[in-house]
Amino acid sequence: MAGTSPAMTKTGMPEHFSFSLINSDGAARRGDIVTPHGRVQTPAFMPVGTAATVKGLTPEVVAGTGAEIVLGNTYHLMLRPGPERIAALGGLHAFMNWPGPILTDSGGFQVMSLSELRKLSEQHVVFRSHLDGAMHELSPERAIEIQALLGADIAMQLDECLRLPASRDDIARAMQLSLRWGERSSRAFESRAKEGYALFGIVQGGDDIPLRLESARALTAMDFHGYAIGGLAVGEPQQVMLKVVEETAPALPAERPRYLMGVGTPHDMLEAVARGIDMFDCVMPTRNGRHGMAFTRFGALNLANARHTADPRPLDAESSHPAARTYSRAYLHHLVKANEMLGAVLLSTVNLAYYQTLMTDMRAAIAAGRFAEFRLETIAGWERGDIPALG
Amino acid sequence: MAGTSPAMTKTGMPEHFSFSLINSDGAARRGDIVTPHGRVQTPAFMPVGTAATVKGLTPEVVAGTGAEIVLGNTYHLMLRPGPERIAALGGLHAFMNWPGPILTDSGGFQVMSLSELRKLSEQHVVFRSHLDGAMHELSPERAIEIQALLGADIAMQLDECLRLPASRDDIARAMQLSLRWGERSSRAFESRAKEGYALFGIVQGGDDIPLRLESARALTAMDFHGYAIGGLAVGEPQQVMLKVVEETAPALPAERPRYLMGVGTPHDMLEAVARGIDMFDCVMPTRNGRHGMAFTRFGALNLANARHTADPRPLDAESSHPAARTYSRAYLHHLVKANEMLGAVLLSTVNLAYYQTLMTDMRAAIAAGRFAEFRLETIAGWERGDIPALG
Repeated sequence: MAGTSPAMTKTGMPEHFSFSLINSDGAARRGDIVTPHGRVQTPAFMPVGTAATVKGLTPEVVAGTGAEIVLGNTYHLMLRPGPERIAALGGLHAFMNWPGPILTDSGGFQVMSLSELRKLSEQHVVFRSHLDGAMHELSPERAIEIQALLGADIAMQLDECLRLPASRDDIARAMQLSLRWGERSSRAFESRAKEGYALFGIVQGGDDIPLRLESARALTAMDFHGYAIGGLAVGEPQQVMLKVVEETAPALPAERPRYLMGVGTPHDMLEAVARGIDMFDCVMPTRNGRHGMAFTRFGALNLANARHTADPRPLDAESSHPAARTYSRAYLHHLVKANEMLGAVLLSTVNLAYYQTLMTDMRAAIAAGRFAEFRLETIAGWERGDIPALG
Repeated sequence: MAGTSPAMTKTGMPEHFSFSLINSDGAARRGDIVTPHGRVQTPAFMPVGTAATVKGLTPEVVAGTGAEIVLGNTYHLMLRPGPERIAALGGLHAFMNWPGPILTDSGGFQVMSLSELRKLSEQHVVFRSHLDGAMHELSPERAIEIQALLGADIAMQLDECLRLPASRDDIARAMQLSLRWGERSSRAFESRAKEGYALFGIVQGGDDIPLRLESARALTAMDFHGYAIGGLAVGEPQQVMLKVVEETAPALPAERPRYLMGVGTPHDMLEAVARGIDMFDCVMPTRNGRHGMAFTRFGALNLANARHTADPRPLDAESSHPAARTYSRAYLHHLVKANEMLGAVLLSTVNLAYYQTLMTDMRAAIAAGRFAEFRLETIAGWERGDIPALG
């Protein structure tokens, strides 16, 4: 399936989805993904644009943080405004004015986490919309259809997500169903997706390593363009998540990108790259930014805290992003306390920029063969914490 | 008082506050205000930055709409974070990262409209904060002190605002008190304000023309740097407001700027410029933007309306601002329906840009001696309304 014939790009040159592994440093990898809408350097972080918008930020601001690809949510977009509407308006890229690559999830995770009622069968999942109570159906075939209507450069197979902890029987059943849905997703994708676009399979298996390996092997045999590790960051301890990543990543083909879904904190991502992950998405930089938290080289700061009240310093005078260099902590504290929208906008921007800086720095460290040192230095910076204010 | 000696500017050149009347066309005027932080072309619209932020927008976005000056609210800033704190952080320009001119109101209007309890005496007004119930005091002298701490290029005298309708006795009493407070504001300003900065007096008198004229004459004798018409846009019909403007503006000195406080809709501003007004501020472009309304050459559009659901057209393909040219009405409708922050951000931006375009176009029409034609054409455009969508 990965060998479909090329799509035509704007320049008239054929452009396949492709992944090139540039170099490795231990298990950490640096690579390049090419999509019909442009290139993505890995390790990559994808800001979450749930409802066709990264919350509060224009696409120019998102691009200004260094993001090369954004994620859209099939679950949200199928409910509102609907994939057929977005397709009629030129697809998701045109709709949200994001000219770069877009990955869409398949809806499986949100059906589990957001919908009020779901009935799962071999055929599909039927669920009640959290917006208006209407019943909807999502099958592997419909999930592919929706993502094709959206025009996603990278689509994801439909899977069944479980909350952890769960029994081994439940985990095994959901993993096996996800494999069969992966097969159906793959067939649906081949029959209708535009050429040059990509489909990723999703490894399931909860915290059970043998099940994870079984899932990885079966998916690899289906020859997806890339592989995600799903069903993590659902409440399990970080060590459990990292153990699954550490055991699963080597079971995936080295020449395909590996995406750890829904992860995570800067520390989660650093540790996951150390274990061979190439791609991430997470709402944390934007959601926590809306709640007054800033991610920095010095760790996370809660701007609502009274200690910032009179602090004239910027968040990080050495940040690559002007928002982190320009506004005083006192001003950001004021915006957060006054519940001003600009506080959410600026902290979301600062956080996305920090996430991208972390990716840039990890790529540079891998290129220089010093990822292990970079990892220790970065953790030490977070643990050392913030420089106390003078006076 | 208007002849204070010059402040030093960044370039080392002395720079007074000044107003130059460039040309007139009927009663409409085109001019230039110079302040310690830069130039303002008039007619000018000042976006409202209530709590040291134009809601949801970075200063770069605000400047990108064409705004040359913003307004800050003494009432809000004295309560949170406090003027002494802002002064310690380098003043309001540095605090909110707005390098251009700033006008601050004196707090009189918000004390009337927002505080829960106010006790007015000859000496001052004592009021309960709408934020935390704490009691605060505002006198003409303290209002000047606060605005000096903020570093406002243009400060306003403290006045007493009434809601309309009000009895003639109440209006006369409030107008007379405002005159005495104007005198005290002027003395306080001379004794402590930085040189080169400006103080405006505020004409009161409700909808009573003789009282308005008495107020205008008495204030003119006090020789302020500029004159505001206050106490309007407080619930009276547009014709009452315009009648007061029409009668009052000619009673103010031609060589000083005239500012109509808290006004208004695009039509209000067009009519007020036709009657000799130079400056405006209003929350409408940002507040209505947060509630899904767009101001355009075709009149106001409610983006929540279902007729925009599938409309691929931008708000105005000929707008000078990319936000109005880029995003489809269908996308803006989606953002408004989904209560997405980006909807508020984009519509606030579009609206501020339209307000600035209207100012730019009015200045050009006055320069060309065709303000009367421009006024008719502009009103016709609003009344003609939107071009229906095709299909």
